[in-house]
Amino acid sequence: MISARTIGPVRIVGTGLLGASIGLALRAEGVDVILADISPGSVTLAIDYGAGRAAAPDDDPKLIVVAVPPDAVAQTAAAELAAYPKALVTDVASVKLAPLNDLRASGADVARYIGSHPMAGRERGGAISARADLFIGRPWIIAAHDGIADGRAAKGALEALALDLGAVPIEMDAAEHDRSVALVSHVPQVIASLLATRLTEATDVAVGLAGQGLRDTTRIASSNPEMWVQILTANSDPVVEVLRKYRDDLDVLIGSLSDHAAPGSRRAIAESLAGGNAGVARIPGKHGQARHFAQIIIIVADKPGELARLLTEIGDTGVNMEDLRLEHSPGAQVGFAEISVLPEVEQRLLDELTSRGWEIAGAFS
Amino acid sequence: MISARTIGPVRIVGTGLLGASIGLALRAEGVDVILADISPGSVTLAIDYGAGRAAAPDDDPKLIVVAVPPDAVAQTAAAELAAYPKALVTDVASVKLAPLNDLRASGADVARYIGSHPMAGRERGGAISARADLFIGRPWIIAAHDGIADGRAAKGALEALALDLGAVPIEMDAAEHDRSVALVSHVPQVIASLLATRLTEATDVAVGLAGQGLRDTTRIASSNPEMWVQILTANSDPVVEVLRKYRDDLDVLIGSLSDHAAPGSRRAIAESLAGGNAGVARIPGKHGQARHFAQIIIIVADKPGELARLLTEIGDTGVNMEDLRLEHSPGAQVGFAEISVLPEVEQRLLDELTSRGWEIAGAFS
Repeated sequence: MISARTIGPVRIVGTGLLGASIGLALRAEGVDVILADISPGSVTLAIDYGAGRAAAPDDDPKLIVVAVPPDAVAQTAAAELAAYPKALVTDVASVKLAPLNDLRASGADVARYIGSHPMAGRERGGAISARADLFIGRPWIIAAHDGIADGRAAKGALEALALDLGAVPIEMDAAEHDRSVALVSHVPQVIASLLATRLTEATDVAVGLAGQGLRDTTRIASSNPEMWVQILTANSDPVVEVLRKYRDDLDVLIGSLSDHAAPGSRRAIAESLAGGNAGVARIPGKHGQARHFAQIIIIVADKPGELARLLTEIGDTGVNMEDLRLEHSPGAQVGFAEISVLPEVEQRLLDELTSRGWEIAGAFS
Repeated sequence: MISARTIGPVRIVGTGLLGASIGLALRAEGVDVILADISPGSVTLAIDYGAGRAAAPDDDPKLIVVAVPPDAVAQTAAAELAAYPKALVTDVASVKLAPLNDLRASGADVARYIGSHPMAGRERGGAISARADLFIGRPWIIAAHDGIADGRAAKGALEALALDLGAVPIEMDAAEHDRSVALVSHVPQVIASLLATRLTEATDVAVGLAGQGLRDTTRIASSNPEMWVQILTANSDPVVEVLRKYRDDLDVLIGSLSDHAAPGSRRAIAESLAGGNAGVARIPGKHGQARHFAQIIIIVADKPGELARLLTEIGDTGVNMEDLRLEHSPGAQVGFAEISVLPEVEQRLLDELTSRGWEIAGAFS
């Protein structure tokens, strides 16, 4: 048994993917975990998986984690605050201001409520997909507010929970959290879904030409609609604010492109595209670095073991691979591996790979 | 020397990335390649790289490949058609209707012109990045038209060229080509650029939360603006048509989200997202399959050789990996490898990996 930072018992309300995964991870560290869910079958399943035990009348939880769908968070948290008047209550919803405001409006004792948002999990799952290691390396937002009775203790308890689960705790107020995730998560979901929607009218020939660019820009459009309706409506103000600016930019671009021979039109189009260059450059790389890497594209035959052989040979050269992306080519029996490396080792790696017989389809710094 | 399908001499006008790469590939198969460019220095550089020879007064090219920027294609092709009255002329621009119409309007002999579009190359490069294998496995669109004197011979010559370069020839008329690439390439570029533009106003904290979804949706926003101004303006009608539909969908969604408590609003939002599900499902997978795969997410420590070891061990299990994506986690010293496999082997691979000590962060069918 590993000694946990978290002081139990921890009561988890909602035994879906997130709740059950938190339970599994805490149980692995010996914490007493109590499981509850509106569905008795879901609790039984999560207990079968080892995520915790059933609730008992004399339970005295120190920490309660509300892991229910976004639109049920405030009501559930209010009930828990009332039922366990000594416990600290948190939630794991991906929106933070609406639950806090709803809790305040309901007259709940928000002095014992602190929000959190573990940025893990996919919009797929349930207890059956739960994993103790779901949170390892993922950001865990802690959204304190000025109505907490003992802010330091509350933040400390949440940090302990995040660290016990292997997550990276980050403190942020609820409004800043919601604006931030609107921009980096909720708006991209909308943009990608609407782009993918255009493909419903495409010919088979057109979608057959789809390259990596289209695949990347639409990948998240496969997310669960019901889940996203909840997230988007719960965070509608910041999302709408960003979408309106996006729409204004789009209107300008459509205008310029419709009349591209007019004075100033080409410049306006160029500036739209240059704005994208500037924006994408702000996204930090691996481990938050903003470093620039060189890319080498290597042709990999589509047969078992080829990619492993390539990576093993790159490892043999001693060159550290910063990133790897695979591309598939429609209708062809080859794939492409795009390897990112530091620019200063690019030429050496190119020479090594060529001398080992690998075909290089491109190299860019 | 390998025997080429292409009958030379082939004259290449424009010795940037595409022109020089075509030259290198044809030279490797023993074809006589003549290089020309408006910049004498560029020709000399391409000759130095082995992409072909300088033009001579008595050249009698059978095929001329115009590989100049999109807005110079029609004028250059017209000049070549006039200068070499027996040669077949093609181009490699990513838009096909505008050059054909401009050529027709100029009175050029379009009976010897057939457009093509190799879907390879990045919007970076120049002769210095040229590679003989740039086209391997990539689609090569051949855009015939009804004004060609000997359509069968013209298409045959272009097919021979595409096959000699390792590309996959696909025949399509110019208008269908332009509508198709507007949808699968040009519109995604605009959508991604405008999304990335929103990040220029983001706080450091917000961009620090960027996950794989944002990275994927904005990756192509780093493309070269000058190149894309040319592509977008040359294909403005089909691009604007799709963008207008996109804008209409966006307006509806903004309206529903702004007033999400109104009757019908949540349903409208759900339908927008479901439309994205339907659209993304139309994109063919590896080798054009529409198969569904299971995904397993494995935690990979950020140290040299770990990914190679994982792939080697997956290879040892005999399970064929259909796809691989890497994710990085902000601020953490671990990464995630998302492996796609056929659903029927998912459980076996999970068991094998777990027994070999790999940590599984998620598994989804």
